[in-house]
Amino acid sequence: MKFSKVPEATIRRLSRYSRCLEQLQAKGEKVVSSAQLATKCAVNAAQVRKDLAYFGEFGIRGVGYYVSELLFDIKRILGSDKEWRMAIVGMGNLGSALFSYKDFLKQNYKIVAAFDIDPHRIIGRVSEKLGKPVEILHSDTLREVVRERNIEIGIITTPANQAQKVADQLVEADVRGILNFAPAQIEVPEGYIVKNVFFTTVLDNLAYLLSV
Amino acid sequence: MKFSKVPEATIRRLSRYSRCLEQLQAKGEKVVSSAQLATKCAVNAAQVRKDLAYFGEFGIRGVGYYVSELLFDIKRILGSDKEWRMAIVGMGNLGSALFSYKDFLKQNYKIVAAFDIDPHRIIGRVSEKLGKPVEILHSDTLREVVRERNIEIGIITTPANQAQKVADQLVEADVRGILNFAPAQIEVPEGYIVKNVFFTTVLDNLAYLLSV
Repeated sequence: MKFSKVPEATIRRLSRYSRCLEQLQAKGEKVVSSAQLATKCAVNAAQVRKDLAYFGEFGIRGVGYYVSELLFDIKRILGSDKEWRMAIVGMGNLGSALFSYKDFLKQNYKIVAAFDIDPHRIIGRVSEKLGKPVEILHSDTLREVVRERNIEIGIITTPANQAQKVADQLVEADVRGILNFAPAQIEVPEGYIVKNVFFTTVLDNLAYLLSV
Repeated sequence: MKFSKVPEATIRRLSRYSRCLEQLQAKGEKVVSSAQLATKCAVNAAQVRKDLAYFGEFGIRGVGYYVSELLFDIKRILGSDKEWRMAIVGMGNLGSALFSYKDFLKQNYKIVAAFDIDPHRIIGRVSEKLGKPVEILHSDTLREVVRERNIEIGIITTPANQAQKVADQLVEADVRGILNFAPAQIEVPEGYIVKNVFFTTVLDNLAYLLSV
């Protein structure tokens, strides 16, 4: 499947549409108009139609979209219809929080391994935080475990000064997708993809909007 | 200060430039060209110039930008030159992680209160996680504490089904900026601003890029 030049904002909104459609489905709704979907997702109806138009024709004129059909199609487009197996590297507070983040599993994102370099964490300190015993592995075993457990996405939750090193290890283990929470820009070779979640960037954005 | 129609992506990049400039400053660099800054921030030089052009004229032709001057100006634009006082509501794993997130404080974002409704957390269970004793307050006292401590930003880290209720409490306490980590769309009256950090949305984006 290849769609060229789809703006990143469109992909972000597709993800939002998919959450809204899930909610509609849970309520038993069968059909939704682009106007209704737009209101629910806090965008405008023209935007919904434009976003979907990148990927073909959806819905029936004068009727709207069949909820479960559109949800199925969007998940297929996003690649979120399959299960993604993930590893977390860095089991401090944030790693622990993500490890027990319920929304991941609901969306087919499954954390199948947790790594750290701190022996205290590895022998079980973190398991208390998580409320259940968790096998935390030493990062030295990353390459092997990635292969055994078919891990495709690595989540970096180490301190900033460790992030590039962990990214290098993930690349060496051929983990193609990286979600980076460490406040540091990391570099990967072509063909590997990094998405950053920088909390302070979002706060800067909020601060800006509060200031103007 | 009022700048109209500045794209959100520009604001996000300004935040990134500001981090890069801080790193340059820490290294003792005095001057940087737009090309150098662009390389460091992984964007192109024309983009840097275009983003800055929204806010006036910066730098000297043929020389570049004075690092500390540009950093000062960008922080002023972003509103991140002042201290922002924040409260976290929901002291589970994620709330605890954000509470001890070092990068916030480095950037003038100061968490001055932590709330929960779980009496077990309030009487001190979470303090173990945080590695230091922390006074966690009951959400019922939010309005009062917001006033006493001049809180301007509220961070929601509750479960999804509590998010709207907490947002309503924050609005009632006149907290104008909300950073929402709960996987739920929340609604606020005009004049209040919500920024969402949805981890699964970022993962959807990554999954899409890994699929195409």
